[in-house]
Amino acid sequence: MNPANSALLTDLYQLTMLQGYHDSGREEVAVFEFFVRKLRPGRGFLMAAGLEQVLEFLEGLHFSSEELAWLASTGRFSREFLARLETLRFTGDVHAMPEGTVFFPNEPILRVTAPIAQAQLVETRLINLLHFQTLIASKAARMVLMAPDKLLVDFGLRRAHGAEAGLLAARASYLAGFTGTSNVLAGMQFGIPLFGTMAHSFVQAHSDETLAFEHFAHAQPDNVVLLIDTYDTEAAASKVVALAPQLERQGIRIKGVRIDSGDLADHARKVRQILDAGGLQHVTIFASGDIDEYLLRDMFAANAPVDGLGIGTRMDTSSDMPYLDCAYKLQEYAGTARRKRSEGKQTWPGRKQVYRSYDAAGRMASDVVTVEGDAQPGEPLLIAVMRAGQRIAAATLVDIRSHAAANLARLPEPLHRLQEPYDYRVEIAAALRRLAEQVDRGV
Amino acid sequence: MNPANSALLTDLYQLTMLQGYHDSGREEVAVFEFFVRKLRPGRGFLMAAGLEQVLEFLEGLHFSSEELAWLASTGRFSREFLARLETLRFTGDVHAMPEGTVFFPNEPILRVTAPIAQAQLVETRLINLLHFQTLIASKAARMVLMAPDKLLVDFGLRRAHGAEAGLLAARASYLAGFTGTSNVLAGMQFGIPLFGTMAHSFVQAHSDETLAFEHFAHAQPDNVVLLIDTYDTEAAASKVVALAPQLERQGIRIKGVRIDSGDLADHARKVRQILDAGGLQHVTIFASGDIDEYLLRDMFAANAPVDGLGIGTRMDTSSDMPYLDCAYKLQEYAGTARRKRSEGKQTWPGRKQVYRSYDAAGRMASDVVTVEGDAQPGEPLLIAVMRAGQRIAAATLVDIRSHAAANLARLPEPLHRLQEPYDYRVEIAAALRRLAEQVDRGV
Repeated sequence: MNPANSALLTDLYQLTMLQGYHDSGREEVAVFEFFVRKLRPGRGFLMAAGLEQVLEFLEGLHFSSEELAWLASTGRFSREFLARLETLRFTGDVHAMPEGTVFFPNEPILRVTAPIAQAQLVETRLINLLHFQTLIASKAARMVLMAPDKLLVDFGLRRAHGAEAGLLAARASYLAGFTGTSNVLAGMQFGIPLFGTMAHSFVQAHSDETLAFEHFAHAQPDNVVLLIDTYDTEAAASKVVALAPQLERQGIRIKGVRIDSGDLADHARKVRQILDAGGLQHVTIFASGDIDEYLLRDMFAANAPVDGLGIGTRMDTSSDMPYLDCAYKLQEYAGTARRKRSEGKQTWPGRKQVYRSYDAAGRMASDVVTVEGDAQPGEPLLIAVMRAGQRIAAATLVDIRSHAAANLARLPEPLHRLQEPYDYRVEIAAALRRLAEQVDRGV
Repeated sequence: MNPANSALLTDLYQLTMLQGYHDSGREEVAVFEFFVRKLRPGRGFLMAAGLEQVLEFLEGLHFSSEELAWLASTGRFSREFLARLETLRFTGDVHAMPEGTVFFPNEPILRVTAPIAQAQLVETRLINLLHFQTLIASKAARMVLMAPDKLLVDFGLRRAHGAEAGLLAARASYLAGFTGTSNVLAGMQFGIPLFGTMAHSFVQAHSDETLAFEHFAHAQPDNVVLLIDTYDTEAAASKVVALAPQLERQGIRIKGVRIDSGDLADHARKVRQILDAGGLQHVTIFASGDIDEYLLRDMFAANAPVDGLGIGTRMDTSSDMPYLDCAYKLQEYAGTARRKRSEGKQTWPGRKQVYRSYDAAGRMASDVVTVEGDAQPGEPLLIAVMRAGQRIAAATLVDIRSHAAANLARLPEPLHRLQEPYDYRVEIAAALRRLAEQVDRGV
């Protein structure tokens, strides 16, 4: 069984609440919305991602007989309720911002409209999927902005938090503008271009570094990228220069070298000189090791001669912000708008829409969040993607990547800054404020 | 297919190196070790976890026909090499520290001895599995130390980085001493005790808070834990007091209340007074929301009347340290010790063992890292767990949990501190230093 599709990938309280809804006959339609409450200082925008996996999960939602038998064995649930779970499928509607859309706190990026049991049960996995890919796409987008013309490759699988994190980080970074990934399974599952070089162990498994380079070149003649920092980076660059003519005679061209330790920009400059002096102007320099958007900014502000980058841990864990303050909240039940008022966690009630306006140059100018049906100027960002449990919109990963690139191109210049970003204007419409007041008076 | 078991859950360079080893006839036995290089300031120890999933992965390692067909379609690999992959299985040995063992930087916690292709291929997934569970067990152990007699429940699935992260965080925190999890699938897969209460949406789906409490109590009469912060925490506590006699007459006893927002310690004190004044001394207080080990320390230093805690995001993402600086490195090939000397990433060569000494009170006193065969006083921590691809040791999760608790009980008192922890002594033995010198002279 692939646990990613299990209906038990949920919190126990969802099931106990479902039993409660069942016993008290609460089966009306509920509206839940997913949104981010706030961003940490230094972050100015987010990029929506994860919708594809959410829709797959909803389409396949069911309890297997093995799962039902196990639930029965816990003694926590009534027989009638378990019989109900057996036939449970997702029959609701979903509205969402397309993946790759730039968004801001307090803007819903997904809305589920379904009988309350269905909408409640899926909360945990929906947050789990939207949260993680949005986290990574938002982080990757910052790196893309700092190194727009470079080859950016996801190297993060090993330190991602588990297998699914590695796979979905490859997907989220690719849709945000990365060139590819080293993750082979992500290549197979999502069609993401694969990149890879060699590891220190390959060099170490040879008693001679040049011999290791030679063996690697013969094994991968079309993709000779040699790792040169196992012992001494500049000495290895000279070995590459010495080896090149021999390989050329055998019809093999060295494509690049990789540096994985030390001051990457400094080594890149020295290595570039050695390669150029040796007639290897065509050999590119690939850097990896502890790279994040701040290092990229500094590296390219100083014009480091780096052509490509392998970016792992700090992206796949979103290390400076490893989670988002996000929620999936009930906004309407049985046709009546609802609102949570817990301290610091108040929500805006009702079904909402987000409208975006652009300036004369085509850059994003401001957003308005309002109740659905209160038409505002600008482009509505939430669109219908599923009706009665059936998908009505599909986007390929390539389409999503184009949409993300178009969104980044329309980002106001100040939002490119890594620190002290500009505070993009998100207005709460009068109609939504009025609804919140009505809800508060009603309770 | 469960992607967690795929042989393609690896970096492309592992496969290109395997082609290189194959083409150049490098098929000798290699020894790789997994270790953590250093800890971030404020962290004093680590707890080993993830071995069970590593052994499962190694036992099941193979390329499916679908995966082989896909690899062939990429045009990157020779037919002979792909035929070789078709029969590849893991036939090596594994030595490891048992899960739940406390360890320190520079100490290997796992050693793989196998033909180089096998040992190399599995690098990515072995790091992925050991890194994440060790990260979470180490974080959870700090929380257990700060709240030793409290009910600690993992609530983190929704913000864990994907499905597998949620499942394995439930496992890692339970082995480190948590009481259970809210993650239903983790309950089914690992037998971890399940806990759960109710969500704000359940309260919001009712027009009246007391009615929501009543419905929930009837649906879960044996586990009535009521969430009281949807609107006004203390007002809801009074509603609980008012409702209790009626439920008692129906044979239902309220077990607890949960507070999920605001100043948790302050609300807990006020709610405790309201409950006690209402004769509900038996009703426990459960707190959740942004809890980490620092908050636990402060909460219990101030004697907050909190009996149980739901701990989510900050544990499941290890938010203060979302990754470990760890590596899986070649230490020996074809009988000769090897060492990487990249700047800031030097390794100690050869197959190693770690010996631990205890003081008169039974507390850990110091460790020695040395070459295998150089017997030192103390307890050797790495034991054989797999021979020729077959497991030779199995531990239940309950055994592992006991081992972890025993390890935490033997932790020196200063290592309990959350900040400025004591620097535990890990000595590099003379024999290991000599081997490193020999390797350096040899290259």
